[in-house]
Amino acid sequence: MLLKNATILTMNANRDILTNGAIAVQGNRIVALGKTSALEARYPSEESLDLGGKLIIPGLIDTHVHLAQALIRGCADDMALIQWLCERVWVLQGNFTHDDGYVSARLGIAEMLRSGTTTFLESMLAHRYGFDGIAQAVQESGIRACLAGIVMDIGTYATQTNSMHPGMIESRDTSLLGVIQMHDKWQGAANDRLHVWFGPRTPGGVTSELYREMSEIAHQRQMGITMHLAEVEADKIYLQEKFGLTPVDYAESVGLLGPRSVLVHMVWLTSAEIEKLAATGTHVSHNPSSNSKLASGVCKVPLMLERGVNVALGCDGGPSNNDYDLIREMKMAAILHKAVTLDPLIVPAETVLEMATINGARALGLDHEIGSLEVGKKADLVVIDLARLHTTPAINPVSTLVYAATGGEVDTVMVDGQIVVRQGRLLTMDEHEVMREANQHANMLYQRAGIDLKPRWPIS
Amino acid sequence: MLLKNATILTMNANRDILTNGAIAVQGNRIVALGKTSALEARYPSEESLDLGGKLIIPGLIDTHVHLAQALIRGCADDMALIQWLCERVWVLQGNFTHDDGYVSARLGIAEMLRSGTTTFLESMLAHRYGFDGIAQAVQESGIRACLAGIVMDIGTYATQTNSMHPGMIESRDTSLLGVIQMHDKWQGAANDRLHVWFGPRTPGGVTSELYREMSEIAHQRQMGITMHLAEVEADKIYLQEKFGLTPVDYAESVGLLGPRSVLVHMVWLTSAEIEKLAATGTHVSHNPSSNSKLASGVCKVPLMLERGVNVALGCDGGPSNNDYDLIREMKMAAILHKAVTLDPLIVPAETVLEMATINGARALGLDHEIGSLEVGKKADLVVIDLARLHTTPAINPVSTLVYAATGGEVDTVMVDGQIVVRQGRLLTMDEHEVMREANQHANMLYQRAGIDLKPRWPIS
Ligand SMILES: [Zn+2]
Ligand SMILES: [Zn+2]
Repeated sequence: MLLKNATILTMNANRDILTNGAIAVQGNRIVALGKTSALEARYPSEESLDLGGKLIIPGLIDTHVHLAQALIRGCADDMALIQWLCERVWVLQGNFTHDDGYVSARLGIAEMLRSGTTTFLESMLAHRYGFDGIAQAVQESGIRACLAGIVMDIGTYATQTNSMHPGMIESRDTSLLGVIQMHDKWQGAANDRLHVWFGPRTPGGVTSELYREMSEIAHQRQMGITMHLAEVEADKIYLQEKFGLTPVDYAESVGLLGPRSVLVHMVWLTSAEIEKLAATGTHVSHNPSSNSKLASGVCKVPLMLERGVNVALGCDGGPSNNDYDLIREMKMAAILHKAVTLDPLIVPAETVLEMATINGARALGLDHEIGSLEVGKKADLVVIDLARLHTTPAINPVSTLVYAATGGEVDTVMVDGQIVVRQGRLLTMDEHEVMREANQHANMLYQRAGIDLKPRWPIS
Repeated sequence: MLLKNATILTMNANRDILTNGAIAVQGNRIVALGKTSALEARYPSEESLDLGGKLIIPGLIDTHVHLAQALIRGCADDMALIQWLCERVWVLQGNFTHDDGYVSARLGIAEMLRSGTTTFLESMLAHRYGFDGIAQAVQESGIRACLAGIVMDIGTYATQTNSMHPGMIESRDTSLLGVIQMHDKWQGAANDRLHVWFGPRTPGGVTSELYREMSEIAHQRQMGITMHLAEVEADKIYLQEKFGLTPVDYAESVGLLGPRSVLVHMVWLTSAEIEKLAATGTHVSHNPSSNSKLASGVCKVPLMLERGVNVALGCDGGPSNNDYDLIREMKMAAILHKAVTLDPLIVPAETVLEMATINGARALGLDHEIGSLEVGKKADLVVIDLARLHTTPAINPVSTLVYAATGGEVDTVMVDGQIVVRQGRLLTMDEHEVMREANQHANMLYQRAGIDLKPRWPIS
């Protein structure tokens, strides 16, 4: 198949931008990339898609989402974190059935595909949500995913609360061994679209012994690890009091640093810790909307970039963002740091586009396969239609995409050589069915959990 | 006409939310509001629009935009302010023709209507852009506007630069008297949809004498005044050095405080200044995306609200935001302040919706006519379709609107009793024609100004 007549942001090492460009895809790979005229001559009989000047970018990579939180979008807005967790998120998630997990995954995946995300890293996938069903949702939808199964052995989450909902608690055996089973079963499934990672809970939910055991297994099996860390100041205080260590030093002490680790949020760090991340090749998933909405603070992204840390982007979840639109997230990442540093030059549009593409691929250990549009890489790409009022004129495609567009401008999405969204419509799922199911399951879940979300204003 | 089967966020004094609600409109006024069943019984033969459970909110009010900047969207991304102004924005705007002004106004207005803004306050409308053409664009489009004509008498803008582009300079006579002529000609036009204000330049572009003369005329004619103030720290330093006064004290000294003034940005203020704004009933237009993108800083909105300042919202312009989507702006306003204060409870969704509706109406002196859905008020309203993946489930309509929606969810827009957007399509303008013209004029403008906006990456 030939995608032609497009402006292509390749995100290759040279960051080449091609006008009047075309991409030839065979199977699940990009086999040629160049001027439309040249590729038409080379592939005269190939089925082609004329994109009429639209933009092609690499498929976006969201390095931190919670699929199970799509169903509880907006369950805890404008609340303090302890209530956010203990009265809402954990209570609802503790009441999840496997069906809820599947329905929520479909909702989250559908939203991601429609807004241009072709690969995501799911954090802390619990047994409770039904791993098999979620892996099936990934398979059916056509998206690419790293599913990190939860690892925990303490029924508390010390930095925020002592009372986790019983439905949220797992032991070493159910969690660690559960993830290993999942890895055996699903790693490399769906034509290698599906990878299985470890997703340990934050310190306070996991003993140092279990972290070490898990890190060892991850090393043996070459599995990725992702964990929330230093999201709130309390995390830092807890580790200081309990272990006399900074978050990064504690992570190092239990084997959590290194190029197979994606540490998420990372707001409360010192310069020394940031240097250690760079030195060890540990990746950071930056979630600016979530950190802002939950009042966690502002991650020192400019310093991280300066020191050479690989920073990727994440939307986090339905109660903390509340969307899974990585294009909107790029704008937030680009403007938030300017506001707090008073420097209009930092974190430019080009940098956030790198975060959402090639840096994300690097974080997932997949930069040899995805994250840029290059011959030999897998065909994960997104066509963006900038012929909209709010993106006109689109003088510079990079900054128009980052500062003016939203996921609503996504026209076509290809993952692993398969078109999954065309002219803004999902081809692999029935959108209306996904929404209908989600509404139904959300209503039942709220009832079961005994939570009645009333607006703060009088309703009649 | 009867709009029925909707959830209605009335934004009345009680902030009542109506489910299964309906609104009856006669001429340009809301004549009834209540349960659908009751209104159907009362208006059996009225033409009706079944909204199938969609959301109705008051038309959004954007209290700070620059119409002329729609055409130069993205002209100066990731640049320092002095280059932003001197090498790009002023050079381009200095090269504007009346045609460019009209085309840019149509683009900006089309984008605003499509994303739910029914009223805007345009700041600093210069002669160069052709006032009559822009007033005509307002008239034709069906939107409601306060057009503030520029007032200036110094060809510099001392806080940022000494070299304004010659095309940007006006004198007391052309500017002040020009606005007065415009007021005589256009005030109350288009069935009172069009008001004319004074839009003086920031101190540095206007002498104290001219501010005083203008304030006096504004008082006599009951005209509104809007001005950028304390946007950057340099503004504050300039006023301190030149007059020994804080920005708010200087504004007071030249007659710029009071309930007919909307001061924009207001980032660099002390608590004492904020108290003076509250005491004098001076309104603030908060522009969080612009302040962030341009690295101006973070306005002390929580303190302003606490002290009782009326804070409204604004998108600012195409090079500073870069969109005119007030729904996206609401999210930014709701999450930015949480990030910098580490308080998740401040500036909740309800508060930003007030900023974008009733507070905006109050700022424009129009709260007796618009800003809420109440019997007797003008029929300015927006229908939002939350049946989208990224707004599902929409448990709480207020927080779903603020945290998950974008202007892309706007289904229907009514201004002054006239439907101007239906099922996401503009009825008063040809969207494709607007974009085509804008692209054409933007290209000519860049050529004329000798600016070639190349991406920072190699393009071929
Ligand atoms: Zn998370
Ligand atoms: Zn402005």
